[in-house]
Amino acid sequence: MDEFDAIARLLAPLALGYAGAFELRDDAALLAPVAGPGHVVTTDTIIQGVHFRRDDPPETIARKLVRSNLSDLIAKGAVPVAAMLNLSWPHDRDGAALKAFVAGLGDDLSVLCAGTPLIGGDTTALDGPMVAGLTLFGRCAGGRPVLRRGAAPGDAICVTGVIGSSFLGLAQLDGRLAPPLDPAFSEVYRVPQPPPLAFAHVVAAHGRASLDVSDGLIGDCGHMARVSGVEILLDLEAVPLHSAAGTWRDTHTDPLAATLALLTGGDDYQVVMAVRPPSLGAAIAEARELGVSLTRIGTCRSGASVRARWDGRDVTAEAGAGGWRHRLG
Amino acid sequence: MDEFDAIARLLAPLALGYAGAFELRDDAALLAPVAGPGHVVTTDTIIQGVHFRRDDPPETIARKLVRSNLSDLIAKGAVPVAAMLNLSWPHDRDGAALKAFVAGLGDDLSVLCAGTPLIGGDTTALDGPMVAGLTLFGRCAGGRPVLRRGAAPGDAICVTGVIGSSFLGLAQLDGRLAPPLDPAFSEVYRVPQPPPLAFAHVVAAHGRASLDVSDGLIGDCGHMARVSGVEILLDLEAVPLHSAAGTWRDTHTDPLAATLALLTGGDDYQVVMAVRPPSLGAAIAEARELGVSLTRIGTCRSGASVRARWDGRDVTAEAGAGGWRHRLG
Repeated sequence: MDEFDAIARLLAPLALGYAGAFELRDDAALLAPVAGPGHVVTTDTIIQGVHFRRDDPPETIARKLVRSNLSDLIAKGAVPVAAMLNLSWPHDRDGAALKAFVAGLGDDLSVLCAGTPLIGGDTTALDGPMVAGLTLFGRCAGGRPVLRRGAAPGDAICVTGVIGSSFLGLAQLDGRLAPPLDPAFSEVYRVPQPPPLAFAHVVAAHGRASLDVSDGLIGDCGHMARVSGVEILLDLEAVPLHSAAGTWRDTHTDPLAATLALLTGGDDYQVVMAVRPPSLGAAIAEARELGVSLTRIGTCRSGASVRARWDGRDVTAEAGAGGWRHRLG
Repeated sequence: MDEFDAIARLLAPLALGYAGAFELRDDAALLAPVAGPGHVVTTDTIIQGVHFRRDDPPETIARKLVRSNLSDLIAKGAVPVAAMLNLSWPHDRDGAALKAFVAGLGDDLSVLCAGTPLIGGDTTALDGPMVAGLTLFGRCAGGRPVLRRGAAPGDAICVTGVIGSSFLGLAQLDGRLAPPLDPAFSEVYRVPQPPPLAFAHVVAAHGRASLDVSDGLIGDCGHMARVSGVEILLDLEAVPLHSAAGTWRDTHTDPLAATLALLTGGDDYQVVMAVRPPSLGAAIAEARELGVSLTRIGTCRSGASVRARWDGRDVTAEAGAGGWRHRLG
């Protein structure tokens, strides 16, 4: 199957009849205007061997691609209206794998993203690892996107869901956890669970600053701290964990090191946001109505960094502030 | 240098102060509305070993990335307003190479694309070939984008510039041309020369259907023919060539085979469009004012394929209609 057949047969149904997709038979799309200040645009690329494992099912690779982008959009207080795909497909993966990839992509775009059409993109083949990029276009749930900047001294720092499960899932898949903990962790590594679309309204209503947790909680809080110009005082013991992750941490020979591993592992795709204390109760209650746990994990003060606290002591920033960084030259 | 430093130091100036780029310090951008029916969006990925050679200068790789996308936009009758970059950078390329890449990117966005800001994207590092994707957002020069569909029986088929120079350039760089022809061909392979931005107005005013020549002239005419539902009668001898390419063709042992190689090689990044005969003179004259040669190379009739003619005879469609295809599984 060559790229033209692949586009026509497999991807075209994902356009869901969006007029400006031109049935994916053109080399450009027409992105219709949305209400508000413009389109919120986010793009993330995932690479075999970096963001997913060679032997992950292609269907879950596609879901990870959608979800890693969706969490970015939700964290901005925006909901998706259209998507574009840049797919570099290795020669050594067959048509059945491509079909499975497209099935996962289509399912997540239609169900999780509530009928978001694929309006264009490009497909190429390569001798090398699979490289898949998605661009999501969103409209603001409120009047403007919520940015990394905007946190102010006194704001509470909250995070959705639990942190560190994906780190444990990868360690488990790599055989670095003996005995293995729970297959659910591996599943979360492969298929992240960002907050639902409706959570974008909670972010838009209550978030002063917000971003998704992709590089690792401590590193991502560092992004917010530097760009907002605040010090984020982070209570490491308050960070919500899956109960089995909590047990793993508590029975570890070095619980602080274990905690830092969970909080710098990344790949969580949860939302961390700064909320004014008077809004905190409403934000937590509205999140709960959506089935989302929102947990306070810190406070903003004047400064421009992260200060992590554990057992009443400061943890040096270097220990965990690095996050998940990719070397570029 | 890690990805955050790279973004901050090297790429941020390319945002050119665009408000919604947030100085490239956020994980999303805000794409401001444009006049007209919406944004024309196009994206193309180029891969080391497929679209460029391992030893091409990084600065020219970036220019090829911009230009391969720009030709798509111009062919739709649109001019760029913003760009996003997805860069997967190999571990084995150093910071100086990254700097050169960004210099080429910045220069083409600012000069060739008349100050198009880079509003976002993502950067990752990989063990494998360089993979670089660009997404261009444009506004229609006319009231709507010009599509692959829309050609009708009776329309003239025209192409900008010359065809086949990039094919010769690659053959020359690979040492497959003895003796080599002209260093200019290698340069065109590395740095394509699409029509200037202003040509989008000619497309918008006179094009009934249009696309860029990236897969190869015959294959791309095939796209237009199938989607428009016309037969394109292509006069292979009328296709404009660089004079040295014409000499190479004419002195070849098999001039037809040589012609088909030039017309299926791809990587031309010229514009092929269908024009109603009454508009043809005006289109050619307006192109000439912009320094662009626009040459009639064929005619549309009823049907849905390409019929290539050479020396008064039909050339079988299979000989050249394949274009440059990438196998996908």
